[in-house]
Amino acid sequence: ERERERETVTLIPGDGIGPEISTAVMKIFEAAKAPIQWEERNVTAIQGPGGKWMIPPDAKESMDKNKMGLKGPLKTPIAAGHPSMNLLLRKTFDLYANVRPCMSIEGYKTPYTDVDLVTIRENTEGEYSGIEHIIVDGVVQSIKLITETASKRIAEYAFEYARNNQRTSVTAVHKANIMRMSDGLFLRKCREVAENYKDVKFREMYLDTVCLNMVQDPTQFDVLVMPNLYGDILSDLCAGLIGGLGVTPSGNIGANGVAIFESVHGTAPDIAGLDMANPTALLLSAVMMLRHMGLHAYADKIQIACFDTIKDKKVLTGDLGGKSKCSEFTGEICRRVQDME
Amino acid sequence: ERERERETVTLIPGDGIGPEISTAVMKIFEAAKAPIQWEERNVTAIQGPGGKWMIPPDAKESMDKNKMGLKGPLKTPIAAGHPSMNLLLRKTFDLYANVRPCMSIEGYKTPYTDVDLVTIRENTEGEYSGIEHIIVDGVVQSIKLITETASKRIAEYAFEYARNNQRTSVTAVHKANIMRMSDGLFLRKCREVAENYKDVKFREMYLDTVCLNMVQDPTQFDVLVMPNLYGDILSDLCAGLIGGLGVTPSGNIGANGVAIFESVHGTAPDIAGLDMANPTALLLSAVMMLRHMGLHAYADKIQIACFDTIKDKKVLTGDLGGKSKCSEFTGEICRRVQDME
Ligand SMILES: CC(C)[C@H](C(=O)O)[C@@H](O)C(=O)O
Ligand SMILES: CC(C)[C@H](C(=O)O)[C@@H](O)C(=O)O
Repeated sequence: ERERERETVTLIPGDGIGPEISTAVMKIFEAAKAPIQWEERNVTAIQGPGGKWMIPPDAKESMDKNKMGLKGPLKTPIAAGHPSMNLLLRKTFDLYANVRPCMSIEGYKTPYTDVDLVTIRENTEGEYSGIEHIIVDGVVQSIKLITETASKRIAEYAFEYARNNQRTSVTAVHKANIMRMSDGLFLRKCREVAENYKDVKFREMYLDTVCLNMVQDPTQFDVLVMPNLYGDILSDLCAGLIGGLGVTPSGNIGANGVAIFESVHGTAPDIAGLDMANPTALLLSAVMMLRHMGLHAYADKIQIACFDTIKDKKVLTGDLGGKSKCSEFTGEICRRVQDME
Repeated sequence: ERERERETVTLIPGDGIGPEISTAVMKIFEAAKAPIQWEERNVTAIQGPGGKWMIPPDAKESMDKNKMGLKGPLKTPIAAGHPSMNLLLRKTFDLYANVRPCMSIEGYKTPYTDVDLVTIRENTEGEYSGIEHIIVDGVVQSIKLITETASKRIAEYAFEYARNNQRTSVTAVHKANIMRMSDGLFLRKCREVAENYKDVKFREMYLDTVCLNMVQDPTQFDVLVMPNLYGDILSDLCAGLIGGLGVTPSGNIGANGVAIFESVHGTAPDIAGLDMANPTALLLSAVMMLRHMGLHAYADKIQIACFDTIKDKKVLTGDLGGKSKCSEFTGEICRRVQDME
């Protein structure tokens, strides 16, 4: 392979264990000679004019320029009205599709094997609209907002994803039996879009039924597409099936090529700085990013090295059942990557 | 034991397999000499003045009088604006607490053992308010309604339930990080009520986190209390952990002693009338009803006979992995009940 021109990616190391696991990813990328140049940016929310929370201008500029980001966990300061930093990023860059592949990891024992599915969550509206009112004392309403535009957009994303990733079915997850107008609109758009993808099987299922069937036999699912909150729930449920947020990658995709890939676990302040963290979720998110950029050879190499290290069981961090440090686990993956040259 | 005065219970056999499994339950109750007199009522929705859907007056009167009901599955006719019959019943009798115990069944293999938890779902408001609007073309909103009264009532029910059933903890399940006002109100009421139940441990957790932890280790949960939709989801998820809706009982509890216990599986029209249905869910719901009525000795007897039959594996219906008919399975439970005399 000839050395490619490097592409610049905004790296948001994040808080807590964020910097350690970001370092791990950078080392592994270097070992794999992945043609990525990192541009590190801090993301701590700042208050703009009128008290509006926003991400720092230099982080925003970096993302606007590079369009591609990788981010570790961010802590959300406990201040009245302070938004989740994750949500603020999704909103700032209109990252409308939250994509979480869940694949069983050989050697990491859970009650399930052969899980191989992808949840695709509408990331901008629904129950996350943030519109709430007090009607009278003791009576509150929250508004779930569903639009035709966003529903169509996410449905199209899901079918495109299925087609481009050799997936065979898309299941729309909904409660249109209860929320007839809102989930009804979402479902209708999915049905319409399905018409244009005759090569992909379309199914529709109630959210409760999906949850029940999911824990009984997750292998019956492939790509799932759903409104915001349902995606929040199902993506975590599915992560649980394969070992939790420490091993589950995630990507937030926007229009015009903008995307941020992120690990969705917490900042783990208790072990921050102790070289104990597991970088797998961030690494696999970075692998997703490589695929998204079309750099499949690098993605394959790193993914194989990571999964082989876990399967081998000799060098594992504590949460994976081992005794090794983050740096040792990282070193082992680097070694395997280099052996593949 | 002396024969007790019989109490009258409204029996709504329901549609599809409903009549068969209701017959099974009646036979087993007879074998156990349970002091219950059944008053059978049909529930097909009818339209009252102004086109309003309602349940038939004789069923309503029966429930108003007896206050206690057992019901099989009801089909919801596909007619525009036709409500779910299950929801209509919950609404008609203001059955505000939906209670679903999930207990691993020995001999019925699932990926989990030792599940023993209870989901308590607010059954009257939240996402099920039915209030929806089209704002402009292509933009729809659904309203989630949370009230202080209903939140307090369900929290109190959950803590009372925990205390009276030797349960050690109540977990409030919410997304107050996103729906700060509505789920915030629900959570605040749970916290306040918890203050009056110092003997019961109180925990609060995000819905997504509960889903993730639930599939990883359900034994960490005991009583869970939550708004309507979250309960719909979690109760099905938990049913999946122990074998599905065919073996999961359910109760809908209202004020002033009114309650309806029901199996929550479908009407299974494909096997209706073929003596193939599994009556376990309806039977265990009837057992829940006996406990609710304070008839614990009868409840124990029937429950043991049912679980022993399943554990023994000799006489099982098809869905439980056997080849026996509904009537044979029922006969086996009756035999075991009578052997206990
Ligand atoms: C951090 C939180 C606001 C977020 C959400 O609810 O979407 C998280 O659970 C997620 O799934 O990324
Ligand atoms: C039948 C349906 C309307 C109902 C619900 O959504 O509540 C069902 O799923 C349940 O859990 O009883």
